[in-house]
Amino acid sequence: MTRYHLNEMPDAWYNAIPELPEPMQPPLHPGTREPLGPDDLTPLFPMGLIMQEASPDVWVSIPGEVIDILRMWRPTPLVRAERLERMLGTPARIYFKDESVSPAGSHKPNTAVPQAFYNQQEGIKRLTTETGAGQWGTALSFATAQFDMECKVYMVRSSYEQKPYRRILMETWGGEVVPSPVADPSSPGSLGLAISDAVADAAQREDTHYALGSVLNHVLLHQTVIGLEARDQLKLAGEERPDVVIAPCGGGSNLGGIALPFMTDRDVRLVAVEPASCPTLTEGTFEYDFGDTAGMTPLLPMYTLGKDFMPPTIHAGGLRYHGDSPIISALVKAGRMEAVAYPQGKTFEAAVMFANAEGRIPAPECGHGIRAAIDEALAAKETGEEKVILFNYCGHGFLDLAAYDDYNNGRLIDG
Amino acid sequence: MTRYHLNEMPDAWYNAIPELPEPMQPPLHPGTREPLGPDDLTPLFPMGLIMQEASPDVWVSIPGEVIDILRMWRPTPLVRAERLERMLGTPARIYFKDESVSPAGSHKPNTAVPQAFYNQQEGIKRLTTETGAGQWGTALSFATAQFDMECKVYMVRSSYEQKPYRRILMETWGGEVVPSPVADPSSPGSLGLAISDAVADAAQREDTHYALGSVLNHVLLHQTVIGLEARDQLKLAGEERPDVVIAPCGGGSNLGGIALPFMTDRDVRLVAVEPASCPTLTEGTFEYDFGDTAGMTPLLPMYTLGKDFMPPTIHAGGLRYHGDSPIISALVKAGRMEAVAYPQGKTFEAAVMFANAEGRIPAPECGHGIRAAIDEALAAKETGEEKVILFNYCGHGFLDLAAYDDYNNGRLIDG
Repeated sequence: MTRYHLNEMPDAWYNAIPELPEPMQPPLHPGTREPLGPDDLTPLFPMGLIMQEASPDVWVSIPGEVIDILRMWRPTPLVRAERLERMLGTPARIYFKDESVSPAGSHKPNTAVPQAFYNQQEGIKRLTTETGAGQWGTALSFATAQFDMECKVYMVRSSYEQKPYRRILMETWGGEVVPSPVADPSSPGSLGLAISDAVADAAQREDTHYALGSVLNHVLLHQTVIGLEARDQLKLAGEERPDVVIAPCGGGSNLGGIALPFMTDRDVRLVAVEPASCPTLTEGTFEYDFGDTAGMTPLLPMYTLGKDFMPPTIHAGGLRYHGDSPIISALVKAGRMEAVAYPQGKTFEAAVMFANAEGRIPAPECGHGIRAAIDEALAAKETGEEKVILFNYCGHGFLDLAAYDDYNNGRLIDG
Repeated sequence: MTRYHLNEMPDAWYNAIPELPEPMQPPLHPGTREPLGPDDLTPLFPMGLIMQEASPDVWVSIPGEVIDILRMWRPTPLVRAERLERMLGTPARIYFKDESVSPAGSHKPNTAVPQAFYNQQEGIKRLTTETGAGQWGTALSFATAQFDMECKVYMVRSSYEQKPYRRILMETWGGEVVPSPVADPSSPGSLGLAISDAVADAAQREDTHYALGSVLNHVLLHQTVIGLEARDQLKLAGEERPDVVIAPCGGGSNLGGIALPFMTDRDVRLVAVEPASCPTLTEGTFEYDFGDTAGMTPLLPMYTLGKDFMPPTIHAGGLRYHGDSPIISALVKAGRMEAVAYPQGKTFEAAVMFANAEGRIPAPECGHGIRAAIDEALAAKETGEEKVILFNYCGHGFLDLAAYDDYNNGRLIDG
């Protein structure tokens, strides 16, 4: 457990779009199916974010007001998991970037803060959003509170019922939380349905915009502080580069955040980890699809299981999404990024190993990345390779302990 | 939010006993009322800890095996709460020592690890203990897992029912958890009753010892890593010394941990903060009393509300104790330490202010120290004094969100 600290966080975000292996296909208008112009997005998003969505610049300056808030927990530590290495008996060196130290306990505030900021700059008073596991809703409630804005969170009903503590945390930061879908109390809900609820709310009110916690280009842009810091911290640790960068993938934001700053280094493998029960990248189709279930959002070029796909209510609620970030999808399609899928039992087994080795309880989403990191380390043990593994510790599991109760007592679905 | 990091944790604990203003009175045998000898304690404790309980040495070396585990989260950061200072408009500089980064989310593992270590060294296979808020039981479950020992936790029934997540966390680390008092399922329980249960269990089995999470001299000794690190980190921050050191006080371990290393500097005020509903130091009597309700433990010289005192079921379960550490009691009696008491509503008000300013949700116990730190800062605003305030951020509140739900919805007793 050696920790590597930086004194300063980055002052610019890394924009991967100009450096992607192949140019991105544009988003399409849901009605006309023509490429979207910036004006098509103004009912939902501020111009500051719309311009970032299609920015041609490789580096985008982070506003000082945003840095002032991100500094509350950034730079986050990079930790060498020496005890896990010893437990596995691997010659690999395993590092994780600890994004669990943020106010919401995950990487999500990295984008919640700039999203609230750009909206407040344009006079918006209120944001709506969806949340799955509750990480994103917590992050946005925290961020809007910093800018004296209101926040309304549509929470996937199965998470709302499984995770009362997440709701309380959002409420403590002043957020208003309702279960989604609002119109069907018998449905367990999904991210796609909750997005529809939140977009419909924002579309109705002049003072209200919508905020999305993953998928979109500007969200991944904001998350690149993770990988940029990790790159410098690995140097502090004496590593030239990681051999493999691993993160769980739902919409793609924590994966994009840690992986994109390594994208142009062809010697670095990039690995997406998803649940076997929601296998968007490993079993989905690359095509234009809606981001939400009701078909209100623009059409995005992405891997998708279809907008009507209803994933089972696994505990990793943040990974229950039918689609994927267009940037991540483009990288997988181009062969620049790999994808693997695990059943949830294997991810909890890894999470508990990690909890015993490193003394930290990971979020169920995070358990997916840990599973893949452990398997990479075990493969290195077979070959004797001194591989450098970097994964994103994207959130703690203190608010997910009901999931561990199910695992400890053999009550998990999907093994 | 400037954070100060050290590279190394201390390699010795600070033993305050030889430097106390007045010599300590000895513990007495519960039967004979004669001073205890080391052998009287061997049924419950290993000799390594018994010797520390009455050590004449000012510095006690920390075993390497203990350091190896404490390094998983130590040294912990010292944080300057600049956003809280601005919110209060105070000229005071407020620092907090972040003990919430440990596996259990509090300062408790600092002593759980050495206690498990010394027991394992003597061939003990199993430890029993009590837990109030659940912080200590979590810490001991984690620590025993590191040494392949069993752990049985008697959890105060009101906490057991209020905090299922704490139970799950203990079970995830392999601890066995039962509600206390075992013999009376209708009782909400108290720390005193739970100690009786745990001591009775340990006394019955050869392979089992008992571990206490606070009160005793060796526990406070182990916690001094907090203050020792903070003293060095304040120097890094350019501060010669704190003007006042503040911590909540239940049994006294987190207060002792941060305050004792400053004890011999007469320019540093030391402040204990307790709940108005369990006002041991502010309204109790200094006398010999039992540590538990059944009268099985040695008699200790301390402030006490009487062993049969049943505190109301406030959320700061870790502060619901009738007695207090003999070291802390001696310092208060000698006038070297101050004590203040707050009703729980005032402490939650402070905790929510802190959560908004600094983006962290404190444990209810921790809210007591924050309340006193805020009041010190507001007093400094009145006088214009550039006071340096240090408090112990002794635990996060992610597992206490039900308490915030009560506060947010006006359901707190002792408001």
